Amino acid sequence: MREVFHHSLEDVQLRLVEIAELVTVAIDKATNAFGSGDIALAEEVIADDSVIDDKAVALDELAIEILARQQPVARDLRIVVTALRVSASLERMGDIAEHIAQLTRMRFPERAIPKGLKSTFRKMGELDVDVARQLTELLRTEDLDLAGEIRNADDAIDELHVSVFEKVLSDSWQGEAGATVDATLASRYHERFADHAVSVAKKVVYLATGTWARDEEEDTVSA
Amino acid sequence: MREVFHHSLEDVQLRLVEIAELVTVAIDKATNAFGSGDIALAEEVIADDSVIDDKAVALDELAIEILARQQPVARDLRIVVTALRVSASLERMGDIAEHIAQLTRMRFPERAIPKGLKSTFRKMGELDVDVARQLTELLRTEDLDLAGEIRNADDAIDELHVSVFEKVLSDSWQGEAGATVDATLASRYHERFADHAVSVAKKVVYLATGTWARDEEEDTVSA
Repeated sequence: MREVFHHSLEDVQLRLVEIAELVTVAIDKATNAFGSGDIALAEEVIADDSVIDDKAVALDELAIEILARQQPVARDLRIVVTALRVSASLERMGDIAEHIAQLTRMRFPERAIPKGLKSTFRKMGELDVDVARQLTELLRTEDLDLAGEIRNADDAIDELHVSVFEKVLSDSWQGEAGATVDATLASRYHERFADHAVSVAKKVVYLATGTWARDEEEDTVSA
Repeated sequence: MREVFHHSLEDVQLRLVEIAELVTVAIDKATNAFGSGDIALAEEVIADDSVIDDKAVALDELAIEILARQQPVARDLRIVVTALRVSASLERMGDIAEHIAQLTRMRFPERAIPKGLKSTFRKMGELDVDVARQLTELLRTEDLDLAGEIRNADDAIDELHVSVFEKVLSDSWQGEAGATVDATLASRYHERFADHAVSVAKKVVYLATGTWARDEEEDTVSA
């Protein structure tokens, strides 16, 4: 019985890493589709989101079954509780990637990315993919240095997010209302990825150390 | 020991209801402050959000302690797992109320609510408060009819959310970029309250029935 139990716990962690990998792919494709107006790539992200959702539900079911049957304590309990929390955040990151893909599709054959903001969104997208990769590694290795890197990347993304609003609200902004709406939503989506990553990283720190970092405000006020 | 245990479980539910009540007050104050430009009311929401955050953290700690010490099964386990999930959503609803209050503060002494959208946002705000009240009652009573009412209100809020974008993207829209940004963000925030409420309601249905409703997409694509 013990051995079966430990297999299950290992399975929990492997599944979290697998979901994080799928989320990384979704963010990579969605931000690239948004930048290039690639409708086929956007459609892939939209079609694949249900895979992430299903895997998150399956992981939750496994976690609850472990709680019910194995009644884990100490670190084993922390693994299971963390998995329940982290899977919700990863699932949400997948949804946000889907939103960016939907924005891309809605504007097709135009590009959703407003003029004058292309390089800003490219940088945000690249940082978001970096963050998702770091998060996957953090879940795989529990190397807590990665939590600090994720926080730094989040700060950089927050600065870019603020710069989008500075641009949109400046006298030089020529965009029509549609471009302003797109910039506002897209920037918020790009920023939320990193917020979720910071939140997950804190939960992994809890897993590794047993100390509950209070879930402070990651979310930057937008405008 | 049994009696102590049941006290704890009852305590979990009472604490969830208490947090939901605080969130309802925050949504009520924030949407009213947004509609009227009442800076003092907005400041109250911002100051009080940490109370919600602290109570959510304390509830999580209690839930984890119960898992560790009491190793609940069956319905008792479902109460604890649901509490962990619901507290995260309630905490997030409090954050969103704070965001609306921050928008109000940022535009003061102007009103954040863009011209031509006043009655739309008033209706959204009223529906959001209704939803938060229904959610509180659902947590208190487990009356599952309330879950259906919450879903209906969410549909109505989604329609209003779509109408904001129709307005902003119409030829008659005279707002400058700042007003467009405010309308976009505020509408998204108002809509997210109800999404979270629907998500929590599903979790309460799980608690009552033991059947896991798949967490489908509540989130409306914005534009």
